[in-house]
Amino acid sequence: MGKAIETVGILSPGDMGHSVGQVLGAHGLRVIACLQGRSERTRALAVEAQIEAVPTYPALVQEADLILSILVPAQAMQAATVVAQAISETGAEVVYADCNAIAPQTVRQIGTVITKAGRRFVDASIVGGPPRGDAGPRVYASGPHAEALEALRPFGLNVIVLGEQIGQASAIKMCYAALTKGLTALCTELLTAAQVLGVSEALAQEFQRSQPTQYARMQRLPGMPIKSRRFVGEMEEIAKTFEAVGLTPRMLAGAADMYRLVGRTHLADRTPEDPTPLSSLDEMLETLVDAL
Amino acid sequence: MGKAIETVGILSPGDMGHSVGQVLGAHGLRVIACLQGRSERTRALAVEAQIEAVPTYPALVQEADLILSILVPAQAMQAATVVAQAISETGAEVVYADCNAIAPQTVRQIGTVITKAGRRFVDASIVGGPPRGDAGPRVYASGPHAEALEALRPFGLNVIVLGEQIGQASAIKMCYAALTKGLTALCTELLTAAQVLGVSEALAQEFQRSQPTQYARMQRLPGMPIKSRRFVGEMEEIAKTFEAVGLTPRMLAGAADMYRLVGRTHLADRTPEDPTPLSSLDEMLETLVDAL
Repeated sequence: MGKAIETVGILSPGDMGHSVGQVLGAHGLRVIACLQGRSERTRALAVEAQIEAVPTYPALVQEADLILSILVPAQAMQAATVVAQAISETGAEVVYADCNAIAPQTVRQIGTVITKAGRRFVDASIVGGPPRGDAGPRVYASGPHAEALEALRPFGLNVIVLGEQIGQASAIKMCYAALTKGLTALCTELLTAAQVLGVSEALAQEFQRSQPTQYARMQRLPGMPIKSRRFVGEMEEIAKTFEAVGLTPRMLAGAADMYRLVGRTHLADRTPEDPTPLSSLDEMLETLVDAL
Repeated sequence: MGKAIETVGILSPGDMGHSVGQVLGAHGLRVIACLQGRSERTRALAVEAQIEAVPTYPALVQEADLILSILVPAQAMQAATVVAQAISETGAEVVYADCNAIAPQTVRQIGTVITKAGRRFVDASIVGGPPRGDAGPRVYASGPHAEALEALRPFGLNVIVLGEQIGQASAIKMCYAALTKGLTALCTELLTAAQVLGVSEALAQEFQRSQPTQYARMQRLPGMPIKSRRFVGEMEEIAKTFEAVGLTPRMLAGAADMYRLVGRTHLADRTPEDPTPLSSLDEMLETLVDAL
């Protein structure tokens, strides 16, 4: 970085974005966001996280030293395009870090959009849930300008630099989420099938006996549906990542199918702020069986 | 059963089959097999398990009170057809239990072949590894004649009857193996991808930190390749099972792709009797990367 970071732009302050912004703000940085076209919920989360709204993207790129793109995968390219446009219009000196769950080849395309606008680009990814108290996710960074993200380390973010190549930070996220979200999709599928086939109870007993750790993990599945719609695109990005290295895309394409199924149900309409208890695992599975 | 079980036919005494036969023999049953067309290795396993060879399938069906079909999925239907033919020729009173990892709809087809030959059919499945010492797999049974398999309980098999329907025993196996072998395929894929993408070391550190149980499980992956070729058909049967209830077949079709990839490498040529140490996880992944 030419200069120390004072202001960070968050694009956009959704579930993860507002939490990251809140951490940076609590550690003394100015955190801003442009809320053009964002949902009411995102606006409320920005207020809660004390993120300052700026009116336009040109204002965002001029006031921020660093922009963190934290979005659903499908929005990552469009966001970069809007920012690149604002950079071209204003000549602003901002660094752009894409922190989204996207394939290495996708992040390279996004990087090209930013570097063509003449600005430095960082590949980044976030592994783990939003920061809560002392615990926080790891923020992986790679590419020739990864140190620009490393500069956030004194401000409460656990930044780990992986190397010089754009794509490495995205790659680790893809492989990690293949396990966590792939396994969640697999468990959701096999438990739904067991429900239809009338062997749920015997299967639960068998899992308790011979797969107790995986069984315990399954009990947390009802927390997934509220995130299912955004997982669809992430699974598709992992499928693309695997296909690009010559591996089968089908396991992760199937995981996307599962999240699409869950996303079609009312379980996915819930917001994290909803104070009513989550459905039980049995209720969740019954809802999925009805959706088949 | 009309009469007590004295003689059990094993079709065929491969890895699981010979172990099951050994347990039954050790508990006082006569155990027989027809080794027509079986491999040298299966013949050696039969000798080791003290399973008595009979010369023909007509001899097998006439001497056995109960036949257990324990094969790779692709052979299940052909084996039943050969046995049905032998039953028709001889009028033998044998009960036939299909214990294979096959879809409920496949086992119903097999059941029809046996019942058309006028004999009782049991749907069965084996969950867990071959019996060793006191520990053994669970043998699930279902269908109107499931009690014929339950009769083996005093002879060292942990038989659990699930219900009256042909398909239930196969269904629990499909859902269970979706977890265990599906997860193994998923882990193999994401670790291979990480190797190609140059993030293996950082991913291993991240897993050790945030997914220690799954990481520990991954260390056992080098034991899988010797079973990979037979897992292909099993994954395809699970994909069919899920598709038949309206769920996506793609996760398990992708798992079959992964086992096909592993099965193409020299790692799959090894036999369980090979005394040399297994490859390390790194060696296994390097071999898979070379096979892409």
